[in-house]
Amino acid sequence: MRMYDIIEKKRDGHSLTQEEIQFFIEGYTNNEIPDYQASALLMAIYFQDMTQEERANLTTSMVESGDQIDLSAISGIKVDKHSTGGVGDTTTLILAPLVASVGVPVAKMSGRGLGHTGGTIDKLEAVPGFHVEITNDEFIELVNQNKVAVVGQSGNLTPADKKIYGLRDVTATVNSIPLIASSIMSKKIASGADGIVLDVKTGAGAFMKEIEEAKNLANAMVSIGNQVGRNTMAVISDMSQPLGNAIGNALEVKEAIDTLQGRGPEDLTELCLTLGSQMVVLADKADNIEEARLKLETNLTNGKALEQFKIFLESQGGDASVADSPETLPQSTYKIELPAKQSGTIAKIIADDIGYSAMMLGAGRATKDSQIDLAVGIVLHKKIGDSVQEGESLLTIHANQDAVEDVKEKLYASIDISNTDVEAPTLVYDMITK
Amino acid sequence: MRMYDIIEKKRDGHSLTQEEIQFFIEGYTNNEIPDYQASALLMAIYFQDMTQEERANLTTSMVESGDQIDLSAISGIKVDKHSTGGVGDTTTLILAPLVASVGVPVAKMSGRGLGHTGGTIDKLEAVPGFHVEITNDEFIELVNQNKVAVVGQSGNLTPADKKIYGLRDVTATVNSIPLIASSIMSKKIASGADGIVLDVKTGAGAFMKEIEEAKNLANAMVSIGNQVGRNTMAVISDMSQPLGNAIGNALEVKEAIDTLQGRGPEDLTELCLTLGSQMVVLADKADNIEEARLKLETNLTNGKALEQFKIFLESQGGDASVADSPETLPQSTYKIELPAKQSGTIAKIIADDIGYSAMMLGAGRATKDSQIDLAVGIVLHKKIGDSVQEGESLLTIHANQDAVEDVKEKLYASIDISNTDVEAPTLVYDMITK
Repeated sequence: MRMYDIIEKKRDGHSLTQEEIQFFIEGYTNNEIPDYQASALLMAIYFQDMTQEERANLTTSMVESGDQIDLSAISGIKVDKHSTGGVGDTTTLILAPLVASVGVPVAKMSGRGLGHTGGTIDKLEAVPGFHVEITNDEFIELVNQNKVAVVGQSGNLTPADKKIYGLRDVTATVNSIPLIASSIMSKKIASGADGIVLDVKTGAGAFMKEIEEAKNLANAMVSIGNQVGRNTMAVISDMSQPLGNAIGNALEVKEAIDTLQGRGPEDLTELCLTLGSQMVVLADKADNIEEARLKLETNLTNGKALEQFKIFLESQGGDASVADSPETLPQSTYKIELPAKQSGTIAKIIADDIGYSAMMLGAGRATKDSQIDLAVGIVLHKKIGDSVQEGESLLTIHANQDAVEDVKEKLYASIDISNTDVEAPTLVYDMITK
Repeated sequence: MRMYDIIEKKRDGHSLTQEEIQFFIEGYTNNEIPDYQASALLMAIYFQDMTQEERANLTTSMVESGDQIDLSAISGIKVDKHSTGGVGDTTTLILAPLVASVGVPVAKMSGRGLGHTGGTIDKLEAVPGFHVEITNDEFIELVNQNKVAVVGQSGNLTPADKKIYGLRDVTATVNSIPLIASSIMSKKIASGADGIVLDVKTGAGAFMKEIEEAKNLANAMVSIGNQVGRNTMAVISDMSQPLGNAIGNALEVKEAIDTLQGRGPEDLTELCLTLGSQMVVLADKADNIEEARLKLETNLTNGKALEQFKIFLESQGGDASVADSPETLPQSTYKIELPAKQSGTIAKIIADDIGYSAMMLGAGRATKDSQIDLAVGIVLHKKIGDSVQEGESLLTIHANQDAVEDVKEKLYASIDISNTDVEAPTLVYDMITK
């Protein structure tokens, strides 16, 4: 078998066999196939696409390129959630204890990541004492015992994906449905979950700007997951504005605490209930979506969801009292309001720019070695469709510096106020099942 | 400017500016742009093509990536000929002295090359004493004095093309009209000719199997040449069977001598007259094609073309007496006939396989370091459309080994004899001018 022939075959629009895909992934991971042949194949895939079978084979080969997490020692159906990423996305902090509270085992492997704010682990580390340095055995025992635990990514998961992603990033081959779908799904599958709920974001603040693109990606991922024997479904949700109100690490933990008590922002709560009900059904802890949703809603109001969160924090060394006294979370020195310059209705909140502003304050990492300031960030008081009076605060800037003129300028530029009525955007556009 | 943006722009079907193309060619030649980005761009070009302007800019940037030959010290309009390559293509050996005999200056830079037989220089070296080791000044003086000289390729011509070609060869991006056209034209333009006549081959023995493909390539090259100020035209000619009868180095020199005396194979003579008349017109040595052709035909019969060949050979140290006594050229030990196994009409002669058979005998180089046997090769006695009797010789194998069973088997397999009439293929399909 020769890489040349594989490139030519895909270039000419033919389907690659499982053996050919395997040959590419193995050879590229082992540095036997050079970058320049891999990038030519990736560009050919960009133009010629892949069949559902090719996508599943590509994903499987990437999974097999490295370690795979074995969660079989955890009883029950393990369900994982993945979001394609957005601004102010606090769902994981809420969903993990929430679905655990109705009996779904949540064995969450998470990262720190680059971006506007930290990753799930960074956010949780805003809770004094909380740590993810636990062994694999401890991790499994914690899930069996408490239904929920979070551990840092370890082992050599999907090295093929890491190498391919690095190459796509410099050869303009990122934006390809079969390549995005196999990249995401290979990581989820290698992480060992039995079922996967995908939150595919769409809108100005998401990678997929158009709903149709998001649906295509969701369909591709759902198809891959189910082909390789993982029960998978997807929700298409809005990211035209930030989700919830808080953007920042400790600020999002506080928002998660509010939400777990049934007092969270409406959009964030609704999305958690939507994604959570799917997880509960996939985990076979309810017969249908309606029953699942009712169980979750009940636990948001009866205190069980918050109680589960406290157990989870404590089990990993965290000070659970923050759930009752969120003011003990890291606090910024300055809290600066951003008054509206005119009255009207909020027409636009550019999610990316809000996220970027949070990063300017120090909430996120620009490079792998950057330090995160857990206290800083932004809390929105208005969302699209809300009316506002001139001088009323649009949002609060939580900063550890008093000179925030550049951040204010960026924020003003990212929020449009209209004289005419504007409707709040739809939150959930579609659900994709196999 | 970033290579990433250039790849993305072409991937999305937009035209690259002159500056962007220049940035890529310069950066890639200087090893500042890595192979993996170059191959991604080449694959994007494969799918998205290039406009005429982009093709001309790409060619110019490749020309400017290295040395350019300055032929301005040669008086008159210098016209070069380029063939896209085939089997038994002896045209250069004939055309150089033929058009020189009517006053066209021929400053030929040639190579040795890999393939079924040697390159033009290898063939000429079958003439005892002939050599191409002359200085640039000598070369120019010889052309001014005798109208024709041949020199080996020297200097650092189109290094960008060499590097890009090497990459295309391993990334399945060879077969792209803008890339083929710019590769060929950059070398011709850097070689300094004022006018260029292209012989684009089509048929089973050519790179372009279909006439339409060949026309596309010819149009692309003619457009590039004329855009950059070189008077360029193309002939689309047949390569469904070998051109002429001889395949082999000394054998082709003998065939060239025959042709220069007006006694050559009909197809080879006709193609030389067709290409030659175009060269004469481009060089402004005739007002029209008819007049040019008449001049050339005259010199084939009155001995002037052969006389020019002798002057040329002598001027570069060659023994011109071979023109009168071709039997003094290197001769093989064995001359083995291939008798027809049945009577009928020749329906097919697979050019590639005939060429490969010549190479098996030692006529060509398999690798850069292979030694060529100048004496060996094949001389066809029958061409497509000829009738043949069982037992009559189809061709003579000129070998320096008596065991040629494998070559015979290959040759039998490459020649079809039909019971029904078959017409000889058209020789010249089309002419492309700007």
